[in-house]
Formats: sequence, structure tokens, C-alpha cells
Amino acid sequence: MEKWYSYEQLYNFCMAVFTKIGCNSTDADTAAKALIAADLRGIDSHGVARLTGYIRLWEVKRVNATPQIKIVHETLSTAVVNGDAGLGLVVAPYAMQVAIDKAKNVGTGWVSVKNSNHFGIAGYHAMMALPNDMIGIAMTNASALVAPTFSIERMLGTNPIAVAIPAGKEPAFVADFATTTAANGKLEILQRKNATAPTGWIQDKDGQSSTNANELKIGGSLLPLGGDREHSSHKGYALGAIVDIFSAVLSGANYGPWVPPFPVYVPMPENMPGEGIGHFFGAMRIDAFRTSEEFKQHMDNWIQRFRSAKTVAGEEKVIIPGDPEREMEIIRIKEGIPLANAVAEDLKSLAERFSLSFP
Amino acid sequence: MEKWYSYEQLYNFCMAVFTKIGCNSTDADTAAKALIAADLRGIDSHGVARLTGYIRLWEVKRVNATPQIKIVHETLSTAVVNGDAGLGLVVAPYAMQVAIDKAKNVGTGWVSVKNSNHFGIAGYHAMMALPNDMIGIAMTNASALVAPTFSIERMLGTNPIAVAIPAGKEPAFVADFATTTAANGKLEILQRKNATAPTGWIQDKDGQSSTNANELKIGGSLLPLGGDREHSSHKGYALGAIVDIFSAVLSGANYGPWVPPFPVYVPMPENMPGEGIGHFFGAMRIDAFRTSEEFKQHMDNWIQRFRSAKTVAGEEKVIIPGDPEREMEIIRIKEGIPLANAVAEDLKSLAERFSLSFP
Repeated sequence: MEKWYSYEQLYNFCMAVFTKIGCNSTDADTAAKALIAADLRGIDSHGVARLTGYIRLWEVKRVNATPQIKIVHETLSTAVVNGDAGLGLVVAPYAMQVAIDKAKNVGTGWVSVKNSNHFGIAGYHAMMALPNDMIGIAMTNASALVAPTFSIERMLGTNPIAVAIPAGKEPAFVADFATTTAANGKLEILQRKNATAPTGWIQDKDGQSSTNANELKIGGSLLPLGGDREHSSHKGYALGAIVDIFSAVLSGANYGPWVPPFPVYVPMPENMPGEGIGHFFGAMRIDAFRTSEEFKQHMDNWIQRFRSAKTVAGEEKVIIPGDPEREMEIIRIKEGIPLANAVAEDLKSLAERFSLSFP
Repeated sequence: MEKWYSYEQLYNFCMAVFTKIGCNSTDADTAAKALIAADLRGIDSHGVARLTGYIRLWEVKRVNATPQIKIVHETLSTAVVNGDAGLGLVVAPYAMQVAIDKAKNVGTGWVSVKNSNHFGIAGYHAMMALPNDMIGIAMTNASALVAPTFSIERMLGTNPIAVAIPAGKEPAFVADFATTTAANGKLEILQRKNATAPTGWIQDKDGQSSTNANELKIGGSLLPLGGDREHSSHKGYALGAIVDIFSAVLSGANYGPWVPPFPVYVPMPENMPGEGIGHFFGAMRIDAFRTSEEFKQHMDNWIQRFRSAKTVAGEEKVIIPGDPEREMEIIRIKEGIPLANAVAEDLKSLAERFSLSFP
């Protein structure tokens, strides 16, 4: 049911497709790397499986392949970036670099972005800080699939947060998670298997707990991290709200139920209050707090202590955020990236449309 | 089972007690206001109910009543503050003010704190940013009660995060929450009632789900927000870890299982790697991103849209983070603050010990 591709095969294909829609070679390279980072790290829902989706957005002129990305407002430690409707895969690395440059100068940099599009995985952008001996933070809003506590309306996206923290001998700490109990990609996996979802992931259109993995197609909603009020879904709701406000109310992007949907067949919301979708990035120089050596020594100690914590019977060790994705990346760089047949077929259609070849 | 006190009665008593242990009048005032903010806002577990605990820490010389709080490292947008073992109730407002002053200058300010103690409620410190037209962020680590996903060891505190965001005509958005499914205070309420806890709050010493509200006394742990792996407890664990690292690894405080316990009868951890407990504060000037007018207009729109979202049958409206605490504060300023008899008795003993009177 799946076929394996090398990183180079997928990279070359994405480069070719982004070039065909008019991206210059720098932008095509930036976008291809950001996109395939998801496949390498095992977050298959956010990788080349979405390439067709991005191209459809370009076809309906919601993605601008030749954006003039600009800083529209700034202070020594902050900026607002207008993505000019570019691919989020290009806008996000630009904005994260602005945050890093400001951190070099004054210790930290914080950038809110408007007029952008889906940016792939948050963790990839946060990790840009690591080689600079900085902590990186990335978040984005997304179209509404999530009902706040007590609500039956979809008001928030799965609004992920990523935080990348450098260590010394140990690999970096990289957390990257949706602020919902389950990301939408997990529901899609269950749908394909015709399986039911655990309680606490979704509710039906009336706000009742549901295990139907197809519930979102008939008015249901994803639930904020926590699930229900008794398990503190108000905390997941608050986290998703903070991501939304930092990404969009600070920048002038669309927020809440007005965030434009990724699939082109979903109608755009009415009376949109901003431009495109919003992101938020942060970079904090380690040595703006203490020496990099001291920090990394203690970070190594932190990681080693947590990794060696006593486990529940049957579990080998406590996982440090980023461990599974890093291990997957090592395997997939060596052994290749498996694509579901449906995804491979999708990319073949794209190849035909642009007179390219796909292996 | 409870008696009512006015804000002034509790303030005057706390002022007197903090003065008796040697705080100067400015520090006593700062500490009293920070402490009673919890009672006013309905977070009874963190208010005057803890006063005796703070005094016990002073008695065993873990709290220094006359600290020389100092910035020990800084850049234009960052600082590390050494709290000199002062009351967290005094150290935290100092550090948050440093963050605010830096934000005035370069747009944002970020302060990591070491050598501090319990700081009361995070939300109070984050809210210091609001009158300055800034977003405020406050977090702290705490002694280990929480088992990471797959672990049976207590490795993290309930590590709360608070984010306060100004609005225009609407009241501010103020999220303030522990990164666990349930805060320890909620378990204490169940213990008093001899009630069981919902599944997903705690596990026993072997890592099995438990509903015994006294489980923490026999080797059990609180669970990270999410509860179990199927409901994404790894996200709550990651959040708690981020709070721990920002608060303590960045500053040089103790982290993970080495954070000193609040109750003096709990033995101190061995081989502690840092000084005291750690906090982290942030302040972001709204007009470092866009004009305050524009931001507040959209923030009002955000709040009004969410508050009027369609509700589950039986629920009146969707709550904006901070609503319940603000409403409680209005009531308690007018009608007074109820203290459980046990808390009032505790304060009376304290009054005797210091030759003070407590009503």
C-alpha cells in the first residue's frame, strides 16, 4: 500500500513543482526543504501529502508565488511581517530569520506575521534557532475545527506550538504539538481504517462526546487539549486562543472562525477582519541569560535525568520531546520516505499537470 | 464552616505578619497584595491559606525577609534576576517590572529568575503588564508532583503559565493555569470531602490510573494535562517541561525533581543543581507590533465573537479566560472573602505567635 522514495527524489520533485508555479529558485528550495522536513520527521500529514493542496491554493490565486515579503512595523526586538500571500513555507523561514537577527542584536526577537498561508510543521521553523545557540518558538493559527469549552461552534484551529531548546552533548529538546487532544491528521488515519476514535477527541454537532472519526464532516468539532471540562479542556482552549491572538490579533491576520480554510473547496468565511493566516515566532539567545556552556551542561543534565526516570512496567524509557521525530529522520534519510499509494498517485497527477515526471 | 473577612482585614493582617518577620514596608505591601490577589480571584488554595507555609519557610531560613534582589546578567531585552532567597511574592513583581521596563525600551522584556520561592498566583504578575498596554507572561516551576508520560517518578511541578492580554472596551483576557489535568488544590478539596477523583487526574505508584484523592500520599503522581498517552499527556508534559527549562535552566535555579518543596517537613532533594526555585516573565508592548487602538479593537471583536459562540444546551455562554476570576474579584471586594475555619484558626495561631490580633 505504499512506495518508498529518497529525500532527493521528493526534494527534486517539489523544487520542480514550486518552480513551475513561478517561485524563484531560492524560494522553491526554501519551500521544498520546509515541506519535506515533515515527511522526514514522520509527520506525514504535513509533508508532500499536502503539495497538491498548496498548488490548488495557487490556482485560485490565494497563494502568491512571487511575494514581496516585508517588515511593516518594527522595534529593536519585534517586527510585524506581511507575507504578501506567499507560501507559508517561504514566509515562515523569512520571519523566523528576522526574529533570529533581532535576537543577535538585543537578546531576543519576536515576529508576528499576517497575510500568510499554511507553513508546514511548526517545529521546523523553531529549530532554525538551534544552530544560532538560541531557543526557537513557532506557532500558527489555522482554520477553525475546534470548539472552545461549552461551545458547539468551531472557533479555533488546531493551532500548534513548537519550542526548540539547544542542549550540549544531548540532542536538542524539540516540542511541537497541536493544542487539541488529537491533531486532525490522527482522525484521518482512523477514517482510512474505518476505526472509531477514543472519547475525548471529538464532539458531535450538539456538543455530545463522540467516537465517530467522521464526525467533523457532519458538524462535529475537535476538542481542545484536555477533552472535556472535567479534564481541563479550558486549558487547551486557552492555549489555542493565545496562539490565535499572538499570530493574528498582534499582526492583523484573520483570527478565530475567520481564518481561511486550507482546502479550496471549503467556502471562505464572510466579513474577514484581517489578511491571510497568522504566525508568531520567537528567538531567545541563550547567552542573553547565562553562558551557553553553563546552560548546555544543565540542559544535558535535565535531559539525562528525565530520560532515565523510572518507567511504568512495559515502557522502556521516558521520551524527551523531539526524540521520536529525530529517530525517524535518521531512518528516513537512510532508508527513504514511504508514501501511501493515494499520495503517490496525487503527486503523479501533479507531475502530469506540469509536464514533469514522478518516479 | 467558614467566616467572612474584608480585603482590608486580610491585607492589614498580612502586612503585620510580613513586617514582623522583618520585611520593610514596601516589600510587606507588595507581598500582601500579591498573596491576597489569589483570595480575591477565588484561587483560595494560593492565598492567605498559604501564609503559615511562607512563615515556616522563613523560620527554617529558606525565606530571606530582607533580600538584596539583583539583576545578575542582562541584555537590552533580557535579564536574569537573583531573588536572594526572598519571598516569591516580592521577587516576582520586581522581576516582572524589569521585563516591563525593558519592553518600554526595546519592545519586549524577558526575565528568568533564580533563587526565589513560591510566588502566589502567576496571573497576578502577568497582569502587571496590562496598565502598560503590554501583554504579560508569567510562569514558575514548583516541586515535583507530576509524572511525565510513561513514568512513575514525580519529575515536574504543576508549573503554571499565565498570559494576560489587554483589550479595549472588553475586560482583559487572562489565562492562568497549571500544566496538569488538575491542580493540587482541586485534589485537596476532594480529600476534605472524602470524595474520589475523576480518572485522568492521578496515577498510583505503579503508573496505573487511580481515583483515590489521597494517592499522592502513597507514591502516586498528578498527571500532565491530557491525562494519558491516548489523550496526549505528552503535550502537558512538554508544556510543564518548557516552563521548567525557561524558569530554571535559563536562570540557574533548581529544575525537575530538584525543585525545593513548599512544605518544610518534606526533605530537601539531594545534590541540588541550582539555587531556589525559578520563574520566567515576559512583557510585550502592543505598539511594538501595531497601534494599540487597532489591536484593542480587534481584541474586543475576538472576545465578543468567542463569548457569543453557540453553546452546548444548558450552558449560558462561552467563557473568556479570566472571566470567572474577574467576576469573583468584584464580588469579594464588595462582600468579603470567606475563609474555611481551618484557615482562620491557622491565621489565629500565627497572630498569637507574633502577638498580633486576628479578627
